[in-house]
Amino acid sequence: MKLLQFQIDEIIKTALNEDMNYIDITTDLLIDENSVSRAFFLSKADGVLAGLDIACRVTELLDNAVEIKKHFKDGDIIKNGDIIAEFGGKTATLLKAERTSLNILQHMSGIASYTAKCVAETSGTNARIADTRKTLPGLRALQKYAVVCGGGFNHRYNLSDAALVKNNHIDAYGSITEVVKILRSKIGHMANIEVEVRDFAELREAFEAGVKFIMLDNMSLSDMAEAVKITDGRALLEASGNITLEKVRAVAETGVDIISMGALTHDVTAFDLSLRFK
Amino acid sequence: MKLLQFQIDEIIKTALNEDMNYIDITTDLLIDENSVSRAFFLSKADGVLAGLDIACRVTELLDNAVEIKKHFKDGDIIKNGDIIAEFGGKTATLLKAERTSLNILQHMSGIASYTAKCVAETSGTNARIADTRKTLPGLRALQKYAVVCGGGFNHRYNLSDAALVKNNHIDAYGSITEVVKILRSKIGHMANIEVEVRDFAELREAFEAGVKFIMLDNMSLSDMAEAVKITDGRALLEASGNITLEKVRAVAETGVDIISMGALTHDVTAFDLSLRFK
Amino acid sequence: MKLLQFQIDEIIKTALNEDMNYIDITTDLLIDENSVSRAFFLSKADGVLAGLDIACRVTELLDNAVEIKKHFKDGDIIKNGDIIAEFGGKTATLLKAERTSLNILQHMSGIASYTAKCVAETSGTNARIADTRKTLPGLRALQKYAVVCGGGFNHRYNLSDAALVKNNHIDAYGSITEVVKILRSKIGHMANIEVEVRDFAELREAFEAGVKFIMLDNMSLSDMAEAVKITDGRALLEASGNITLEKVRAVAETGVDIISMGALTHDVTAFDLSLRFK
Amino acid sequence: MKLLQFQIDEIIKTALNEDMNYIDITTDLLIDENSVSRAFFLSKADGVLAGLDIACRVTELLDNAVEIKKHFKDGDIIKNGDIIAEFGGKTATLLKAERTSLNILQHMSGIASYTAKCVAETSGTNARIADTRKTLPGLRALQKYAVVCGGGFNHRYNLSDAALVKNNHIDAYGSITEVVKILRSKIGHMANIEVEVRDFAELREAFEAGVKFIMLDNMSLSDMAEAVKITDGRALLEASGNITLEKVRAVAETGVDIISMGALTHDVTAFDLSLRFK
Amino acid sequence: MKLLQFQIDEIIKTALNEDMNYIDITTDLLIDENSVSRAFFLSKADGVLAGLDIACRVTELLDNAVEIKKHFKDGDIIKNGDIIAEFGGKTATLLKAERTSLNILQHMSGIASYTAKCVAETSGTNARIADTRKTLPGLRALQKYAVVCGGGFNHRYNLSDAALVKNNHIDAYGSITEVVKILRSKIGHMANIEVEVRDFAELREAFEAGVKFIMLDNMSLSDMAEAVKITDGRALLEASGNITLEKVRAVAETGVDIISMGALTHDVTAFDLSLRFK
Amino acid sequence: MKLLQFQIDEIIKTALNEDMNYIDITTDLLIDENSVSRAFFLSKADGVLAGLDIACRVTELLDNAVEIKKHFKDGDIIKNGDIIAEFGGKTATLLKAERTSLNILQHMSGIASYTAKCVAETSGTNARIADTRKTLPGLRALQKYAVVCGGGFNHRYNLSDAALVKNNHIDAYGSITEVVKILRSKIGHMANIEVEVRDFAELREAFEAGVKFIMLDNMSLSDMAEAVKITDGRALLEASGNITLEKVRAVAETGVDIISMGALTHDVTAFDLSLRFK
Repeated sequence: MKLLQFQIDEIIKTALNEDMNYIDITTDLLIDENSVSRAFFLSKADGVLAGLDIACRVTELLDNAVEIKKHFKDGDIIKNGDIIAEFGGKTATLLKAERTSLNILQHMSGIASYTAKCVAETSGTNARIADTRKTLPGLRALQKYAVVCGGGFNHRYNLSDAALVKNNHIDAYGSITEVVKILRSKIGHMANIEVEVRDFAELREAFEAGVKFIMLDNMSLSDMAEAVKITDGRALLEASGNITLEKVRAVAETGVDIISMGALTHDVTAFDLSLRFK
Repeated sequence: MKLLQFQIDEIIKTALNEDMNYIDITTDLLIDENSVSRAFFLSKADGVLAGLDIACRVTELLDNAVEIKKHFKDGDIIKNGDIIAEFGGKTATLLKAERTSLNILQHMSGIASYTAKCVAETSGTNARIADTRKTLPGLRALQKYAVVCGGGFNHRYNLSDAALVKNNHIDAYGSITEVVKILRSKIGHMANIEVEVRDFAELREAFEAGVKFIMLDNMSLSDMAEAVKITDGRALLEASGNITLEKVRAVAETGVDIISMGALTHDVTAFDLSLRFK
Repeated sequence: MKLLQFQIDEIIKTALNEDMNYIDITTDLLIDENSVSRAFFLSKADGVLAGLDIACRVTELLDNAVEIKKHFKDGDIIKNGDIIAEFGGKTATLLKAERTSLNILQHMSGIASYTAKCVAETSGTNARIADTRKTLPGLRALQKYAVVCGGGFNHRYNLSDAALVKNNHIDAYGSITEVVKILRSKIGHMANIEVEVRDFAELREAFEAGVKFIMLDNMSLSDMAEAVKITDGRALLEASGNITLEKVRAVAETGVDIISMGALTHDVTAFDLSLRFK
Repeated sequence: MKLLQFQIDEIIKTALNEDMNYIDITTDLLIDENSVSRAFFLSKADGVLAGLDIACRVTELLDNAVEIKKHFKDGDIIKNGDIIAEFGGKTATLLKAERTSLNILQHMSGIASYTAKCVAETSGTNARIADTRKTLPGLRALQKYAVVCGGGFNHRYNLSDAALVKNNHIDAYGSITEVVKILRSKIGHMANIEVEVRDFAELREAFEAGVKFIMLDNMSLSDMAEAVKITDGRALLEASGNITLEKVRAVAETGVDIISMGALTHDVTAFDLSLRFK
Repeated sequence: MKLLQFQIDEIIKTALNEDMNYIDITTDLLIDENSVSRAFFLSKADGVLAGLDIACRVTELLDNAVEIKKHFKDGDIIKNGDIIAEFGGKTATLLKAERTSLNILQHMSGIASYTAKCVAETSGTNARIADTRKTLPGLRALQKYAVVCGGGFNHRYNLSDAALVKNNHIDAYGSITEVVKILRSKIGHMANIEVEVRDFAELREAFEAGVKFIMLDNMSLSDMAEAVKITDGRALLEASGNITLEKVRAVAETGVDIISMGALTHDVTAFDLSLRFK
Repeated sequence: MKLLQFQIDEIIKTALNEDMNYIDITTDLLIDENSVSRAFFLSKADGVLAGLDIACRVTELLDNAVEIKKHFKDGDIIKNGDIIAEFGGKTATLLKAERTSLNILQHMSGIASYTAKCVAETSGTNARIADTRKTLPGLRALQKYAVVCGGGFNHRYNLSDAALVKNNHIDAYGSITEVVKILRSKIGHMANIEVEVRDFAELREAFEAGVKFIMLDNMSLSDMAEAVKITDGRALLEASGNITLEKVRAVAETGVDIISMGALTHDVTAFDLSLRFK
């Protein structure tokens, strides 16, 4: 799985433009243009790597003569003390790229590592960990990709991919049965329909309307378990609503199929990593 | 303090493009174009608001006929249960704007609220809380603005504003004295010079070279206190390095002037807020 | 269903930039800036309208003081001689907008009208007319929207929405059964899986692997009819491959569910429409 | 004649962004990143090639390690069964580039082939086939270039290049004589002036005003022939108005110098071409 | 004559982005958001105004609630002491817009004023003053428009508008006669052909080849006068090469038709103008 | 000191797009695509070079196969007759790049050369020559970089870097003392504060408020000298207001520290340079 290079380049350029709208006043005035150095990314924690190609691309965009040796790849487990990648090239380039590349790598590895913990926490259950549309402006591709690096699954990428019927949509027609009928008459055959339900009555109505994907909105653990019994494997159930690492195991044990977590992408802690010069 | 509208609009458009590259398949197929609704942002936690104008602008960009009433403004303290703003307009617009506006508002208010906690924690001391360049791609203006909303201060915006001399720059010349001399001979008069030091020898050398801004890199609390004694108010001291809310009070009590915290912008927890339809 | 205004504006600006990179040398040198005129879009053929809001938006982008009265809306049937919309405003604006707005309106109405003919041609059958990814660079949203105006359905918007397994993908794993198994283990739950088959053996394998969406690639009419019998309503069948208005009825009568036609968007004849000044 | 690479790249990126806003879900999840394949463009019709460099550039933009061998060049006559170009490289790249490159190549070759038919149809006459401003948003350069590949000529590129005086401009001054006088007093010397006339009175007035380029708007064949006699080679006459391949010979035989055809670019049928894997 | 608003807006946004990538640190921290002021553009020299709409648009883009009263329009003669336009609105907006709007207005009025001097200097002669392609990156439209405000004429806008055959082109074919023949066989009928000549031999060859536009490259005054005699009004002659205000009258008196001056746009002195607060 | 390549590329693309929105009609129709030539930049004046890398990059962006040999580098003194750089490659590329690269190189070298004259004129004094924000839209980075090439210093890059308190800001608070106090309570520690003063009273107030950077606004030479005495080296004094090469020496001799000159960037005369073909 590979993000498009030129799309990534636009994100990196945006970040570099923010960080250097004219010059790097310290480096440009002090470092000789011909000075060369070696440096490396050092992991200072345990987790899962994500964003290494992108972080290295920051350097390439500044100067494609820098030599880069990658010791790991996205999705790999990394440990405190691991050297993730090595760089050899102009000192000025390495210094200018440092902050921007670390900002990206730490954020993406933070997401992958947290996702991996959630995945590990639910091991042995039926549940998959999925992301949401709760992403940061301009960073959806990076964040969703990082979730996959951590072993999670992508929910729909955007509002155009698939339908997710919420109560506001239902209210417009008075019943799930009706809204699903209307939607099926208009929607393209490649777009799935998921319906969000808040109680068993809605769950049953959706189920009887033949809906194959049902989101259980903020249900209690016991209600989720009951929902699993009701649908008995004939619809896929997604648990949703403020689920964090702490409670993900309990949710998984109710038997739901998908656990979607906004926290994966909106409560991110940067993974501890630094650039060291030799 | 006001971010430029057209710069903000670009960020919002990027976010909306991510979220809706063609149509909102659910809303566009189900909601009558003339249906209208009322909705409001509801705070579900206590903290400091940031990003309200931007979040509301999401809706305006989709449809400037939506009526918006703001009950708070950026920098205000908000409580669980507060209604932050109210919206009246096309149901389809409100639904399409929901996720993108919440993603922005929750992220920015998360930053402001955490910053405010750090500021409160250091009350009565001399220390100011400052941000860093550890921001997310494309979001630096939003993140730094949110820090100010929370009562923090902005460190340099980018590499072009001011010089921050780190050990790699010093190594190129062999001594702080020399590097500062060179830098002063080349730098514009409006750009400040800060020097990062790792021990008392470096601190003294910088201080004697007349450097007015000195960053104490990852020093222990006792070393920071000692540094404060050494410089005795004749240079501004900045504490830096993995400082979080938990230890910020102790750092402030050493007497340093500035505490810069990457955590303000790279370990953000979304503030709990939702859009409710009436 | 409504395309995002600011996305449309970008397309219109691109078109206007192409048509006027400096000035409209004829109009700018000859027409008094204060001269005003009235003009109208006149239909010169029978068909279905698409793109009227966008065509009118061209004028607004040049000068939002132009008064516009729309007599029809997208999706409406229009006849030779119908006045589609009327404009009152600066003569210079109307002249500058003319070509760009007509280019868009004629292309989109051409698509909608052809689609509507295909839909009419298959009336009484089970088949839906669907578009493809055979669109022109930069115009996918406009073209797919026009298909819907004509009564057609959208196939997936892009490669990220849903999976369409072709023989190259199958070859990589040796069997449809295997490729479907792998894909299900990795794909998000909201993304559908369609498999393209070339003969009955492949059809049966896909069907037995539980694939719910099967594309019949360039099959003969009799083979399509046989495929309908084999799957007996338990999978949705899509006919594909050089289908045009002339043969669409025969294809529909085989009993397939979806007829996807590249011709809808890649063999477009501009709908005959002009701007007349009063 | 060569379009600017970086301008073309923007069009290709726009097309790829439309086709893959996140990942190619089928290929990214199924095809091994190291898998390599060979494939080729196969012509399935007779015509004139246009857009080959651009179509191949799609692949390069995704991955510049793909090896490309071109057997033809733009403007060449191609036959059903011809292998146009061959590709060797990563299977995933070839699959991701396929649709976008074919969309471009088929559209441009469709234009070139139709233009070439019109040129052939008028062989032996004095008339040149020219395009118009009736192009699709964002595609003017590609479409006009394709017309040249097919042996046609470019009319003005945009409204800024040259003046084309239509009846609305004339009405503003009351007479062709006056409007031409005014225009000459203001226009730069490098911009030509063409005047559109609807009858012999206007033709004579324009001719006597010294206009060297006269457009005959929707005139009958006999009127065009008469116009040719009137101007007797001392002004260049352009026939315009709903001219298609079917009537282009008759128009050419009237003796006009230029036949401009909107159909070249707004009634395009995709040229039949496919990508085949070996 | 009117530049496209949205094209101008892009230039203004570029300028504002340069001038304020985050905030106006002085104004944002000091000026109350509700403070209002009145200010005006004051001319401090005599000349010709150009760019007023654009300069005022800077303010509008920051805040469209600012009230603007324009006392002059582009192309008007302005005198030292004239109040050009008045502004009433938020103090912060007026301060933020000041530098960017003045930079544009002073540059464009500088061009218009210098052009007007050249036009005045050649009054009574046959010669028109024309600009060149010697413009600054991104500013061609603004600069060429300012030339027209000053009474000058636009030479071709870009390389795509018209042909200008220079000696490198001629060398490729060995003779002007040949190069003109080739060019005519390929060029669209709306694109003029001008040929640059360096001596009388070339002049005569171009003239005999029927070239209607001939550029006299760096010829002496007496040679220009001789060229005028040779062509005797049957071709338009353009004088070119380091012509400034000081020698423009002498050049005009040779009888040439066009005097093109790179100096109009590449040796610009800002017109003296300031923003005054009441 | 090095501008970011991809930022420069955007400026160059903007310039090339202006100069060639479709094709170079002369070169594309006349020059054989395989024809190669050699050419060189020839200096026709004495001065200081700036922008060579950027000018050469124009060629590379059109065709990276062109071989370029640079004989000088930015900041070097060049003489009339010097060959600055040599090019070998496709004739068409060299012709297409010519105007755009010269426009950039002549403008930037014009700035550097004028700056160098000002620097030379003030040699032996204490004063540094500094630029201002009086730059042209989109060209700030190029212009400020050229100032440095000429030996000048950069004043703040934009409004976000540092505070410059003018009388409008002071008026809002009634006194310099108050405004400085407020500003210090809000501004980040890395942003300097400069105060503009118009007379000795203001100067003394600023000085006593501890302001370290004071701009003397349009003061007479004798007043500047007096100001130097008053502050006696304990604040840095900047002379500002319509200072040109003619009076820069006299200003420097008053003892001020900085002389900022809008003329460096807004009254630019293109440096005389041309491209010669061998």
